[in-house]
Amino acid sequence: MSTAVRITDPGDPRLGDYTGLTDVALRRRREPAEGLFMAEGEKVIRRALDAGYPMRSMLLTPRWAGAMGELAGAAAAPVYVVEEELAERVTGYHVHRGALAAMERVPLPEPGQLLARGRRLAVLEAVNDHTNIGAVFRGAAALGMDGVLLSPDCADPLYRRSVKVSMGAVFSLPYARLPRGPRALDEVREAGFRLLALTPDARARDIQAVAAEQADGRVALMLGAEGAGLSARALAAADTWVRIPMAHGVDSLNVAAAAAVAFFAITAA
Amino acid sequence: MSTAVRITDPGDPRLGDYTGLTDVALRRRREPAEGLFMAEGEKVIRRALDAGYPMRSMLLTPRWAGAMGELAGAAAAPVYVVEEELAERVTGYHVHRGALAAMERVPLPEPGQLLARGRRLAVLEAVNDHTNIGAVFRGAAALGMDGVLLSPDCADPLYRRSVKVSMGAVFSLPYARLPRGPRALDEVREAGFRLLALTPDARARDIQAVAAEQADGRVALMLGAEGAGLSARALAAADTWVRIPMAHGVDSLNVAAAAAVAFFAITAA
Repeated sequence: MSTAVRITDPGDPRLGDYTGLTDVALRRRREPAEGLFMAEGEKVIRRALDAGYPMRSMLLTPRWAGAMGELAGAAAAPVYVVEEELAERVTGYHVHRGALAAMERVPLPEPGQLLARGRRLAVLEAVNDHTNIGAVFRGAAALGMDGVLLSPDCADPLYRRSVKVSMGAVFSLPYARLPRGPRALDEVREAGFRLLALTPDARARDIQAVAAEQADGRVALMLGAEGAGLSARALAAADTWVRIPMAHGVDSLNVAAAAAVAFFAITAA
Repeated sequence: MSTAVRITDPGDPRLGDYTGLTDVALRRRREPAEGLFMAEGEKVIRRALDAGYPMRSMLLTPRWAGAMGELAGAAAAPVYVVEEELAERVTGYHVHRGALAAMERVPLPEPGQLLARGRRLAVLEAVNDHTNIGAVFRGAAALGMDGVLLSPDCADPLYRRSVKVSMGAVFSLPYARLPRGPRALDEVREAGFRLLALTPDARARDIQAVAAEQADGRVALMLGAEGAGLSARALAAADTWVRIPMAHGVDSLNVAAAAAVAFFAITAA
């Protein structure tokens, strides 16, 4: 705790990383530009450190200064201790888990690195909701997918809400950004992956039957956003359309549940 | 639309079913006691009617009076048309989907009725969160489970939030309440069901292997609440513990995703 600093001025520049955390539009712009992301709560902070992300600093309320300060000390990052009211004034919300860490981004791998070593990849198109991105990562990691490829318009997996919903799975599961443009999936296919597009379309094949056929091959499972699903262009680029059979007149699952079932079908085959 | 009545007094007793909808504690008490539940939005209201629930009345804002009024007319229920401000004052929130219907509960089947005709049942213990109950019903219906048995301390599937999250699946999938007490599961086993308890416990068997063994039998899949999971008593009462294999150091899925994967594993076997 030798680095703990008590701060009482909300305008102190050392709190700059933590300002306006509830302003989603601002943070979406600032965080990638400044090479920054936020981790919240002890479990998530530990997972970010374990995954090799450097800590820039930690913001603690006095109640948490002891236990969490040691974690920051081990990470050789400064600890700022502020009263709860000040924390709320700076961040814009009640920091109920008591600890916030500003973490450093590291360069993402190229898609080719995931394609070289993975056998079961998820390909997300336009999943632009932070909760859904987090939930899909949690399911993909839990169910044994090897990595995630994101279209350029997917939400940031390191945004605070995504990190939280993923329970830190965004740190343990490798991911990369695909390039823009209609040829983005060519590299995936050329790496020997079969492109399966998940869709409720009645013409799609049962995902379990297709997974069984591909049990020894390499599979890239394409998923679209809640509601809209995959674009016509993505569907046209796929090798095979797959669907989860539905009963009782239900037309869909939410994206987290659908993704989890699809990952299970692919990885358990 | 012959039954449409414009109401301008927030204290009008005909609006009694719609008062204080944001007061969860009040509505949890009132709705079962008064044999009432709320359906919100055209799609959900239609599904409730299709499932045979009688409509008591409908509350509409003027913008929706035409299209939705016909639905209420067909259901032979009175339509109350109120300005948006009044709707908000009575219900406590902005009725953005434009239509709210007060529906009549019908008697629940006995567990024995589900046990007699189902082959794949979900058994929920202490799932007391309305969002989770709704999500589990959506998954159970979509993935072809035959019904749901609820412990006495599970949340109400007909509570407004449960109905909404389930996308109306609470209407199409039969469910019953189990009796209190340690013998509640005996009737399930005596009906020839194998009781599988879903748990992250490392001693549990892979759900897919167990599902394959039980492919021709009758299966009751027991699920506990988010976080706590099944109680020690429920685990002790089970025939077999099953788990979804986890990778990448992730210790769990959220309850909706875990339930969906488990239902898929059971029904696709």
